Amino acid sequence: MSKRIAGPEIERLIQLLAKVPGLGPRSARRAALHLIKKKEQLLGPLAAAMAEALDTVRICSTCGNVDTCDPCTVCTDARRDPATLIVVEDVADLWALERAGAINARYHVLGGTLSPLDGVGPEELNIKALVDRVAAGGFGELILAVNATVEGQTTAHYITDQLDGLGVKVTRLAHGVPVGGELDYLDEGTLAAALKSRTTF
Amino acid sequence: MSKRIAGPEIERLIQLLAKVPGLGPRSARRAALHLIKKKEQLLGPLAAAMAEALDTVRICSTCGNVDTCDPCTVCTDARRDPATLIVVEDVADLWALERAGAINARYHVLGGTLSPLDGVGPEELNIKALVDRVAAGGFGELILAVNATVEGQTTAHYITDQLDGLGVKVTRLAHGVPVGGELDYLDEGTLAAALKSRTTF
Ligand SMILES: [Zn+2]
Ligand SMILES: [Zn+2]
Repeated sequence: MSKRIAGPEIERLIQLLAKVPGLGPRSARRAALHLIKKKEQLLGPLAAAMAEALDTVRICSTCGNVDTCDPCTVCTDARRDPATLIVVEDVADLWALERAGAINARYHVLGGTLSPLDGVGPEELNIKALVDRVAAGGFGELILAVNATVEGQTTAHYITDQLDGLGVKVTRLAHGVPVGGELDYLDEGTLAAALKSRTTF
Repeated sequence: MSKRIAGPEIERLIQLLAKVPGLGPRSARRAALHLIKKKEQLLGPLAAAMAEALDTVRICSTCGNVDTCDPCTVCTDARRDPATLIVVEDVADLWALERAGAINARYHVLGGTLSPLDGVGPEELNIKALVDRVAAGGFGELILAVNATVEGQTTAHYITDQLDGLGVKVTRLAHGVPVGGELDYLDEGTLAAALKSRTTF
């Protein structure tokens, strides 16, 4: 703002809200104003929830998930299949797969993908812990649920090499047409992969 | 989420973030994850800024603006023209007009518009304080910068009636504000032009 129209506390709140994914500078102002108007109902509870998260959230030392306990809720869930391990790049992918509700497995969060140009080597990712987990035994299948990007596939290849000889079956997500997706809007690579993996109707 | 995959503290953070304007349930999850990953750089400072705002933000007893002091930064700014008063529906409109930077005046925030069907009468708005402010003298012009909606115009007429005989010139924003448009969504150029061409009400 060209002129000072509010105390620095409000300006700072707006500046920080603008850094939240999904909010830009303009929506940060709207959000700040809404929070201020809903002091008791929203601003207070949200400030408390953030302080609570700040205090309690940690990274699971087993799988790399974020939670308020270590090992995390997923790792300590006895009803999950202990023989299937899904490897994901990011906690967001773990959450997405859980929302899909398609499988009842354990997870391992890599924390990114190999990217030599960005200085991300195997040591920067949660790979050694993955190999140790698999080497400890008990997993029959490891599903590489990494993104279908060059970096994701490079990382998948690297992990497969590291797991060689550990006796675990390594699989990956099928490529194909997204459910509800229109062929028209898909890239050629996806279409080619979907054709190649076609199934009997 | 179908299954418990994180502690209740994280679920609660996501639920509250989903109530922030601009964020929905899905972007709230992304935002929560981003905040958790940036604990030191973003989550901590944002939690502190919210707690600070919660403690310090109040409504200006003179004009209805929100700020951390009362009277507010705008009301106590001696460089502002003390003879021109801009009446707005909402603090967001005050902020939008200030961003336009087209005028250096005082403000009065109504806190809404007359809407009998929603039970919003003159007593629910900051109108009596406006009349008292004008009656106290010193204002040569009152600019009705309300939205170009039926409610906004009804409110403008009501206020004009209340100010009758107080010897203040009442103007309104020029056409140039799209009919049905809300000030907060307009670009600075349009707002500046509308202010410049304001007409007698
Ligand atoms: Zn875990
Ligand atoms: Zn004020």
